[in-house]
Amino acid sequence: MSRLLYDLAGADEAVRFSPYCWRTKLALAHKNLAYETIPWHFTDKDKIAFSGQGQVPVLVDAEKIVTDSQVIAEYLETTYPNEASLFGEPPARQLTSFIKAWTETVLHEAIRPVVMPDIYLLLTPADQVYYRQTREGFYKRSLEEFAAHRAEALGPLNAALKPLKITLEKQPFIAGLAPNYADHIVFGALKWATTVSSVPLLEPGGVLERWMGAVLETYGLA
Amino acid sequence: MSRLLYDLAGADEAVRFSPYCWRTKLALAHKNLAYETIPWHFTDKDKIAFSGQGQVPVLVDAEKIVTDSQVIAEYLETTYPNEASLFGEPPARQLTSFIKAWTETVLHEAIRPVVMPDIYLLLTPADQVYYRQTREGFYKRSLEEFAAHRAEALGPLNAALKPLKITLEKQPFIAGLAPNYADHIVFGALKWATTVSSVPLLEPGGVLERWMGAVLETYGLA
Repeated sequence: MSRLLYDLAGADEAVRFSPYCWRTKLALAHKNLAYETIPWHFTDKDKIAFSGQGQVPVLVDAEKIVTDSQVIAEYLETTYPNEASLFGEPPARQLTSFIKAWTETVLHEAIRPVVMPDIYLLLTPADQVYYRQTREGFYKRSLEEFAAHRAEALGPLNAALKPLKITLEKQPFIAGLAPNYADHIVFGALKWATTVSSVPLLEPGGVLERWMGAVLETYGLA
Repeated sequence: MSRLLYDLAGADEAVRFSPYCWRTKLALAHKNLAYETIPWHFTDKDKIAFSGQGQVPVLVDAEKIVTDSQVIAEYLETTYPNEASLFGEPPARQLTSFIKAWTETVLHEAIRPVVMPDIYLLLTPADQVYYRQTREGFYKRSLEEFAAHRAEALGPLNAALKPLKITLEKQPFIAGLAPNYADHIVFGALKWATTVSSVPLLEPGGVLERWMGAVLETYGLA
């Protein structure tokens, strides 16, 4: 296989939870591109040193090395123009910028305090040390404090999901009748959340769970 | 003039603050359609009884009576297809549904507690009675209580504006290089807020103020 994706994994390498890696996996599926994933851990910096930086996703497409999920999406759109468009034409592509900004500043921020303690438990011992140091350093709050206040963080998360629910009650996908990269961005966030969370986050059989299932089904990943 | 728009006004009829009427005014401008507005007050129900309902915007386009800003936008798009599209092609139109849902459930809700007491002061005496009754009945909170807690409501409003600011730091309009109905929807919310607010809501000369100016300028309304 000449197409490889370095994909964040837990101690159990079947657990793949990076929202940005999920964007890339769905984008590759959208472009009908076969690939293999290489499970990667936060502290496996040496394994992706060849990419010139220290984060995943890293895509190796034959000779080409591409990093950063947004750059990868743009690379795939340009390199494989005969497959279905990831973004659609303008103004669709520009409208997606708002959905990306909302996902990263509102949705990710609402998910993070709920799931950080759960993520910690899923990591390799070396990654646990790294994760605790970086996250507690950034938020000035221990993972145990996040765990103690988890219930309080569920209200803001539900509030953040409201416009998404309203949209998906009216149309099958964010992009309409079929998913595109706008769906991939938001799916990545909820896949991250639901993969790691120790408490149920979405209403069983509700509109968001059905939409996530439909996205996976579109790409034969269900 | 055969094209008339009933437009919410204050006691001073130059004060036009309805977010939904602003959507329609920008949509008409986008479609290069001349129109006259008829200032309307909340309690002028009899003046729009001909439309079969009690809210503005009401558009009277020659023989045709259209109500509800979203229905009006779709009517304009269908009726005047040779002018610039309000929505763009799919998936742009569907992506706009998310921006609409976000505006109405997050942005409007963040603006409302800040500006309700100010709106009250701008209304005709008859509208003041109506506004106090309907709003206090709905929120189970007096306008004076909203005024007393205004400062606390500014934080959530600023937080709500974050994805919008990030988007507009990267591109001139929500829809890209020129505004479309996605911009009109969000502009309506901020025009409503800034028209009535007794305290400054946007950073002077900041990205949102510049974007609002650019939207008006695009349509020769600055």
